[in-house]
Amino acid sequence: MSVRIAIVGAGIMGADHARIVSEDLPGAILQVVCDASSERARHVAESSGATDVATDPVETIRRNDVDAVLIASPDETHAPLSLAAIEAGKPVLCEKPLSQSSKECLGVIEAEVARGRQFVQLGFMRRFDPSYRSMKASLDDGSLGRPIMMHNFHRNVEAPANFTGQMAITNSAPHEFDVARFVLGADYSAISAFQPTGVDASQTGAPVFMVLETDKGQLVNIEINNNAAYGYDVRGELVGEKGSIFLNAPVSTRQNGALMAFERYAPDWRPRFAEAYRLQNKAFLHFVRTGEFPAGASDAWDGYCAALVAEAGVEALQKGERITIAGAEKPSLYNR
Amino acid sequence: MSVRIAIVGAGIMGADHARIVSEDLPGAILQVVCDASSERARHVAESSGATDVATDPVETIRRNDVDAVLIASPDETHAPLSLAAIEAGKPVLCEKPLSQSSKECLGVIEAEVARGRQFVQLGFMRRFDPSYRSMKASLDDGSLGRPIMMHNFHRNVEAPANFTGQMAITNSAPHEFDVARFVLGADYSAISAFQPTGVDASQTGAPVFMVLETDKGQLVNIEINNNAAYGYDVRGELVGEKGSIFLNAPVSTRQNGALMAFERYAPDWRPRFAEAYRLQNKAFLHFVRTGEFPAGASDAWDGYCAALVAEAGVEALQKGERITIAGAEKPSLYNR
Amino acid sequence: MSVRIAIVGAGIMGADHARIVSEDLPGAILQVVCDASSERARHVAESSGATDVATDPVETIRRNDVDAVLIASPDETHAPLSLAAIEAGKPVLCEKPLSQSSKECLGVIEAEVARGRQFVQLGFMRRFDPSYRSMKASLDDGSLGRPIMMHNFHRNVEAPANFTGQMAITNSAPHEFDVARFVLGADYSAISAFQPTGVDASQTGAPVFMVLETDKGQLVNIEINNNAAYGYDVRGELVGEKGSIFLNAPVSTRQNGALMAFERYAPDWRPRFAEAYRLQNKAFLHFVRTGEFPAGASDAWDGYCAALVAEAGVEALQKGERITIAGAEKPSLYNR
Amino acid sequence: MSVRIAIVGAGIMGADHARIVSEDLPGAILQVVCDASSERARHVAESSGATDVATDPVETIRRNDVDAVLIASPDETHAPLSLAAIEAGKPVLCEKPLSQSSKECLGVIEAEVARGRQFVQLGFMRRFDPSYRSMKASLDDGSLGRPIMMHNFHRNVEAPANFTGQMAITNSAPHEFDVARFVLGADYSAISAFQPTGVDASQTGAPVFMVLETDKGQLVNIEINNNAAYGYDVRGELVGEKGSIFLNAPVSTRQNGALMAFERYAPDWRPRFAEAYRLQNKAFLHFVRTGEFPAGASDAWDGYCAALVAEAGVEALQKGERITIAGAEKPSLYNR
Repeated sequence: MSVRIAIVGAGIMGADHARIVSEDLPGAILQVVCDASSERARHVAESSGATDVATDPVETIRRNDVDAVLIASPDETHAPLSLAAIEAGKPVLCEKPLSQSSKECLGVIEAEVARGRQFVQLGFMRRFDPSYRSMKASLDDGSLGRPIMMHNFHRNVEAPANFTGQMAITNSAPHEFDVARFVLGADYSAISAFQPTGVDASQTGAPVFMVLETDKGQLVNIEINNNAAYGYDVRGELVGEKGSIFLNAPVSTRQNGALMAFERYAPDWRPRFAEAYRLQNKAFLHFVRTGEFPAGASDAWDGYCAALVAEAGVEALQKGERITIAGAEKPSLYNR
Repeated sequence: MSVRIAIVGAGIMGADHARIVSEDLPGAILQVVCDASSERARHVAESSGATDVATDPVETIRRNDVDAVLIASPDETHAPLSLAAIEAGKPVLCEKPLSQSSKECLGVIEAEVARGRQFVQLGFMRRFDPSYRSMKASLDDGSLGRPIMMHNFHRNVEAPANFTGQMAITNSAPHEFDVARFVLGADYSAISAFQPTGVDASQTGAPVFMVLETDKGQLVNIEINNNAAYGYDVRGELVGEKGSIFLNAPVSTRQNGALMAFERYAPDWRPRFAEAYRLQNKAFLHFVRTGEFPAGASDAWDGYCAALVAEAGVEALQKGERITIAGAEKPSLYNR
Repeated sequence: MSVRIAIVGAGIMGADHARIVSEDLPGAILQVVCDASSERARHVAESSGATDVATDPVETIRRNDVDAVLIASPDETHAPLSLAAIEAGKPVLCEKPLSQSSKECLGVIEAEVARGRQFVQLGFMRRFDPSYRSMKASLDDGSLGRPIMMHNFHRNVEAPANFTGQMAITNSAPHEFDVARFVLGADYSAISAFQPTGVDASQTGAPVFMVLETDKGQLVNIEINNNAAYGYDVRGELVGEKGSIFLNAPVSTRQNGALMAFERYAPDWRPRFAEAYRLQNKAFLHFVRTGEFPAGASDAWDGYCAALVAEAGVEALQKGERITIAGAEKPSLYNR
Repeated sequence: MSVRIAIVGAGIMGADHARIVSEDLPGAILQVVCDASSERARHVAESSGATDVATDPVETIRRNDVDAVLIASPDETHAPLSLAAIEAGKPVLCEKPLSQSSKECLGVIEAEVARGRQFVQLGFMRRFDPSYRSMKASLDDGSLGRPIMMHNFHRNVEAPANFTGQMAITNSAPHEFDVARFVLGADYSAISAFQPTGVDASQTGAPVFMVLETDKGQLVNIEINNNAAYGYDVRGELVGEKGSIFLNAPVSTRQNGALMAFERYAPDWRPRFAEAYRLQNKAFLHFVRTGEFPAGASDAWDGYCAALVAEAGVEALQKGERITIAGAEKPSLYNR
């Protein structure tokens, strides 16, 4: 039997997920596309061959002909809609963040704990990226020795208008927070944040540099630079006691021309992480079918941890101080 | 309605196709796996969730519950089974080569011409590889200028026993013959072949170097080195009047250790071309559904051209002479 | 007339300088090699064809047949011997550091100011490295836009015994402090220091990570990792508003073997910076001959600045706090 | 005592050599610059601090205050002036080619044999390039296994007017002929030549592709592409039974900008081989002083071998046939 999926939210991410479900996810049927704008829902439904459209997300989640939900609506709806899916007893793949509020994340966690099982797979898709997987494998095979430091660089061509340095921490950095935690298998204990002041003050998207410390004594450094101008570029290096390892971005050719050898950057994140999204969504389908939470995928607890460190990062930036991080007790449900 | 696929041949390639069909090809059902060894068929069927198994390929092709055929049986069966599929009026994705005999290829072409449409998509999967596609795009966007030369390097870790220099031309080189023809949009007019003699004469898999000339006046150089020892490595460079472009292999990380910075090679071809196979098979599914032959895919005529140049290459190697190539007239059916 | 040079200190660095002077510095004569150990002095003198040997550094500096001095003796002698050279009115190329004490550096500066000219060229040879020069040129040609951040990574194979994290700041980091100041044309205003604690506590050479802020509002991040194990590796990236630029190390070949493509690291710093030393010493010879201080070379003031930030870095590490840096007034003599 | 050098020929190469002798060659004095144009001679002499100028090359070679000669005059004068230097008993560093005529090369060889010693070091400077040296070392250390093939690519931005395909073989390819012979330690036994015909026929500098066979059974492939447009680019790969090795060009930085990561090419050969020239000239100075011919340097016999294969290459191109190569007996003087 095919799994009938509802996509809630028909913006850029929702349209991408609709394409993946319809073209690259055998065993899945895109049953309904739901968006506050029925026009937007219809547009995505048509281009992806979805069966139906809707405008009410909670009703959509509760439909009898929907087996699982994919949430790609605005950030502030992620937690409430995840709660609705949990209540309906349906697995949900929720785009990051679960919530920018760690407290609201705890609400989702409580709901899962009350039901005694996990429903929410969180869309930190980088955990499925072959580069991060290969990086993690180099820890497992011992070739790096024990990890000491991780350097992470996140660069976008141009920040949206009104994208502040604080938003660099709350909206961009969570991908880095989560994937470094995933690679290292550690939790954050402190964060410091720095901001260059020499750049054009009229620009939004001011870069932020953070130094995080983990409970295993490692350092995690993160540059968020949303006005990097030259291309979408995510870099990373994991440094161990015996060696280090870099992420490679997929680049299919190298060209010579005009006194240069060059490789191209894409202007946005989709080509870089296309395979990660595909593999993440395959893992979600497996989760829906078997009830087994996918190995390596992020869950509600990971969403809480990301929100917690982002809150501390904002405080560190505002106070110009190192902020220690102490979270809630981890429920045993999440000890996978 | 899902497309019901029969896979004929349950060896390495058949098993790979079974995995792709069952895991990565939405809208397809793996209806039956056929192999002369019922045990081998059953093994692949089980691991891929196929509905049924069989041992007779022609009967399998004719089954009413089979919409399309994927041929991965031994090379000498490719043409006869393709003919059986054409006779049954079913689209077929046939692994390369169509035949090592250009004459036998013409037989398949005649059958298609007689039916007035194409049935055979040939498995030169490199045409779907993002690197070759990007190389071809650099011609289309004008950034390379007109193409002058193409350098191609094909290296395997170790040749199978009894794999001769002649087999390098007939069994390994066709991928290079075809993809260079595809990238350049040209046909071969002559071939010269050279063989280093300084290597260990007891080794099978002696390397061959070929220089081909096209009807557009370009040179295509091909190294086939099946005992390259160090890894599976396919390289290529297209040289135009304004610049040149190299294929990049997908490599997800770069590691530092033991006084080296290193990137790993896989021991065989599958990781290098995994995405090409997936995209090729998606294109085949689209072909089955719509009847439109997929843009850029190789067909029976391309199989004929590859066989023709391989025959000339063997002659060039044996005689130590430049051999001119003159093929049959191309039927209009293949003017896509 | 040839310039007659005395080398004071016949250890590793002194021997290297002797080789450069004798083999690659036209117009220079290695007049005398001086070392507390006459045996060591004789050994270096013989292998480099020096005319004479000596054991007393101050007498050596004062000799009538010595035109210029190259100081490569132990760190604590650098400032006193530089003062002796100033007193003797002779140009001196002094290995870094001028002194680990910023106060002692000020003493050398006062002596130069009193004489009304510069005598001391400091051995921060990276300023002559083609990679850093190219990085700086990308600022000058405008292709990077205004600089925002600089990331610096310094890795050695193995730290000497008893090499503490503090020594990472006082002995290794000054190269990074100086060259980032040189590239950015800025001065440091604050420093924070972090140390991973998860590594083997019995190891010396614990890594240190520093975040520096400049008076132009840029961030300069420095990793010092003297137990990096895998090779000598100095990396750097300068990030500007329009793009970024990486240092490339000189690596003459890339090899395939054993399922890897690899490039080799040297086990120590000399191959990486061989050309920088040669160009630095050529610049010194030009300084001796013309009296014009070489463009881009580091001087006593730069030595003071490096000592000042290292002192602040040690304090930042000890206190776990961000330390602001405020130096002395820069004498006009150093406004080049 | 300093070695007094005369440079004959004050064009681009002569000026470069004058700069190297005056700036980077300790123990050498640039005694005289000789050119048919006294103005050109004076211009180079002034910028390099040469003692004297002259217009008659043979008289210059014979001067009592000249110890050694560096020939950088037009190609057709190389052999006659080398003979004059041999007659005068003076070591000579002669720019390539010794002569385009293998017969004229034999004349120089006879003169050396008659004197019972070598005088002529030939300017195939690539033998001193660290990349080719590293390539050769990978054969010596056994990591490549026995060599099978070598691929060589020579690309210039733009050919001079009237630079024909034949001149690609006689003027550009000799560097490749010589360095491949040097790396492989083998002699050529046959050559085939191919020319793409699809390029703009009005262009000079038509590319040539050659396949050479050695007496050790290896293949040496050479692309000469003097209108490559995109930059000066010399590439090479040596393929052995266990692995392969590529030349890296020295590139000091890698930059990000305008949706690209790029490394720059120089428009001509000088930056690529600057270090090779410097090391070659140092080796020549050592030759002058000691009389020992420098290890690895090319000599008159190597010049003969390069001329011989170029002559065969021209014949192969004209006839469209594989041409076998059989040279004279090698005098024992050249068995180094």
